[in-house]
Amino acid sequence: MEPLDPSGAPSFRACGLVTLTTDFGLVDPYVGIVHGVILARASGARIVDLCHAIPPQDVARAAYFLAHARAYFPSGTVHVAVVDPGVGSARRILVALDGGQAFLAPDNGLLAPVLSAEARVRELDVPRFALPGTGRTFHGRDVFAPAAAALVNGQVDPLSAGRGPQLAFQRTELPRARLDGASAQARVLFADRYGNLVLDARAADLGDDPSRWVVEVGGHSIGVLGAYAEAAPGAPLALVDSFGSLEIAVRDGNAAQCLGLGSGDRVNLRRIR
Amino acid sequence: MEPLDPSGAPSFRACGLVTLTTDFGLVDPYVGIVHGVILARASGARIVDLCHAIPPQDVARAAYFLAHARAYFPSGTVHVAVVDPGVGSARRILVALDGGQAFLAPDNGLLAPVLSAEARVRELDVPRFALPGTGRTFHGRDVFAPAAAALVNGQVDPLSAGRGPQLAFQRTELPRARLDGASAQARVLFADRYGNLVLDARAADLGDDPSRWVVEVGGHSIGVLGAYAEAAPGAPLALVDSFGSLEIAVRDGNAAQCLGLGSGDRVNLRRIR
Amino acid sequence: MEPLDPSGAPSFRACGLVTLTTDFGLVDPYVGIVHGVILARASGARIVDLCHAIPPQDVARAAYFLAHARAYFPSGTVHVAVVDPGVGSARRILVALDGGQAFLAPDNGLLAPVLSAEARVRELDVPRFALPGTGRTFHGRDVFAPAAAALVNGQVDPLSAGRGPQLAFQRTELPRARLDGASAQARVLFADRYGNLVLDARAADLGDDPSRWVVEVGGHSIGVLGAYAEAAPGAPLALVDSFGSLEIAVRDGNAAQCLGLGSGDRVNLRRIR
Repeated sequence: MEPLDPSGAPSFRACGLVTLTTDFGLVDPYVGIVHGVILARASGARIVDLCHAIPPQDVARAAYFLAHARAYFPSGTVHVAVVDPGVGSARRILVALDGGQAFLAPDNGLLAPVLSAEARVRELDVPRFALPGTGRTFHGRDVFAPAAAALVNGQVDPLSAGRGPQLAFQRTELPRARLDGASAQARVLFADRYGNLVLDARAADLGDDPSRWVVEVGGHSIGVLGAYAEAAPGAPLALVDSFGSLEIAVRDGNAAQCLGLGSGDRVNLRRIR
Repeated sequence: MEPLDPSGAPSFRACGLVTLTTDFGLVDPYVGIVHGVILARASGARIVDLCHAIPPQDVARAAYFLAHARAYFPSGTVHVAVVDPGVGSARRILVALDGGQAFLAPDNGLLAPVLSAEARVRELDVPRFALPGTGRTFHGRDVFAPAAAALVNGQVDPLSAGRGPQLAFQRTELPRARLDGASAQARVLFADRYGNLVLDARAADLGDDPSRWVVEVGGHSIGVLGAYAEAAPGAPLALVDSFGSLEIAVRDGNAAQCLGLGSGDRVNLRRIR
Repeated sequence: MEPLDPSGAPSFRACGLVTLTTDFGLVDPYVGIVHGVILARASGARIVDLCHAIPPQDVARAAYFLAHARAYFPSGTVHVAVVDPGVGSARRILVALDGGQAFLAPDNGLLAPVLSAEARVRELDVPRFALPGTGRTFHGRDVFAPAAAALVNGQVDPLSAGRGPQLAFQRTELPRARLDGASAQARVLFADRYGNLVLDARAADLGDDPSRWVVEVGGHSIGVLGAYAEAAPGAPLALVDSFGSLEIAVRDGNAAQCLGLGSGDRVNLRRIR
């Protein structure tokens, strides 16, 4: 495969991995069918189900997960993200090359916080990949899967899978509380499987020592500790989670249930020293 | 491998893919153990979990999913479907060859709407494949998995995995509303992950222009549109889904919850022009 | 690879399989990221998701599942179990070699009923495998996954992945009701996907003919049958399940719901002849 452009920018070299991030859930055969379409065309692909439990139409959640997960996959991975309320409308599908990885997603903002400023993005040439009889309800199966198969097979380079000019890609940040004072408001992004409440506050914004901050919830101050096991069983704590976000947890318990908080709720952060 | 019979009917050529459709769920290790038994015997198999969330004992749901999904898998795929309320009784297990794909399922009607009229079906020779110590509760692990491994390995052809004569296979149709008048009753088959209500009405029976029909629910008429995005946010719509069935949806919402409908409920279809 | 010790004990020969047993759930990308870290380092690994629905912090459930599942995987399998309430504390991670299989788990008792008395166990040499920037909340990603990749690649033998001396491993039994009289109390371990109530009573302790026992629940005697299909539809029954435990079921129904029983509840067993 030749470099894509005269500047000698490196091409994509598929490593065989495809990740899927969708709101398809697992109660229907939708995910399995996508696997089938990919494997029928790329028999050597290894497919990783990154997450299929994105709440229906929650583009921001998919962006958050993929933005934090992509670094754990090697160069040459094809990331497919299908949270697509506009399926069947005139919305475009994007194909991108960024940091040696390929991305396929609807043009609905999903990729905006996922890609770097160096990403090269085009509109996917849908007719080139779409299955015969492609409908207007399940492009995960009819368009994304065959396009992903072509990428993972190395049959086509991400940018040559597009049509039209390279798009002026507008990167956005993930939601991020401003922590430049001694006190700030943060928002609960979501509760994870354990009931841990992930905030839009980033460890990088908490200074060298996150334990100088407390989270205030319902009149109580919750200290920022270093690990779940540093709290007493049943006690709430805050800590920097594995994606570098501040979260509220309850040791051996469920913070969302114990504290009655969920997605969109606001809490106060306060610097105590 | 030789053709199976003197008529020169083509044999099965395994492609390495196995699909699993079960009511095992994912809260127990049942599915993982089935993977283990297959991979221990067929190390190159690639296993696709088509669906493990079939409601317990819901043979019809499994049939619906597999009937619509099989076309997305290549020739040489082994489809294993285990929804098996009769496990441990004298019920037979069927092995079939149809359209170049192999099928394993209990003889409880599951395969009747899945296979074509050309399918060749035999009773699986269970003792030939059963694990030592096979019990009467988990044939997915003890019988289906080792038989699937033998098929995907190409060690045995689907029909030579059977015993006794070829069975006179009685195909049945999936549930299908009769739409030969200007008005008809349809039934909700199930709600999918999004709360979309899948009806037993087939697009093929709606004529050239499905938008000539409306679905009547609770005194309201719901028009048949071409895509979710053609409805206003929060508004109900009907459309032809990705399996060719008519479904009722709510744009960016959950039709099952909004309309209070579920599996088995009836709605009216009416032709308006 | 050389034998590990002068006694000539056999080394581990990786077969390419890795199983994962965790309480990570599937609503977040945690499991997918673990797959990514493994596959980035061991591109030929085949990963089996044994179970990710272990209730949060339920070490005993993970032990029960893995103890009963391991026999269905071949020699050379790497079993990774991460139910880890002590993550980020000083708790050790164990690496073990037992029956030709490798095991990785926190040192919190999880492996005690899983391994045989012949297991050889060491403390994992964490710094040797930990990803750069390893935190204190997600060792499944940062430590277990890269260590598993090294094992499945054959880069390192389970015991040479450890540090310090071999540990004096104290095996424990799974919970097991004492059935040495004509009457005994048993405990519900958990309800499975079907609502079947798995008891801590083992078939091996019921004598040659389990049907000599009844289970007493709320004044009713439930007979021990041979298969679900031997009960009338909707009727309760007891039977020996696929792991050799006694369970209470309802034919084509949900025993946990019908009988109002769940984890930790006690029932009486009585020998009737």
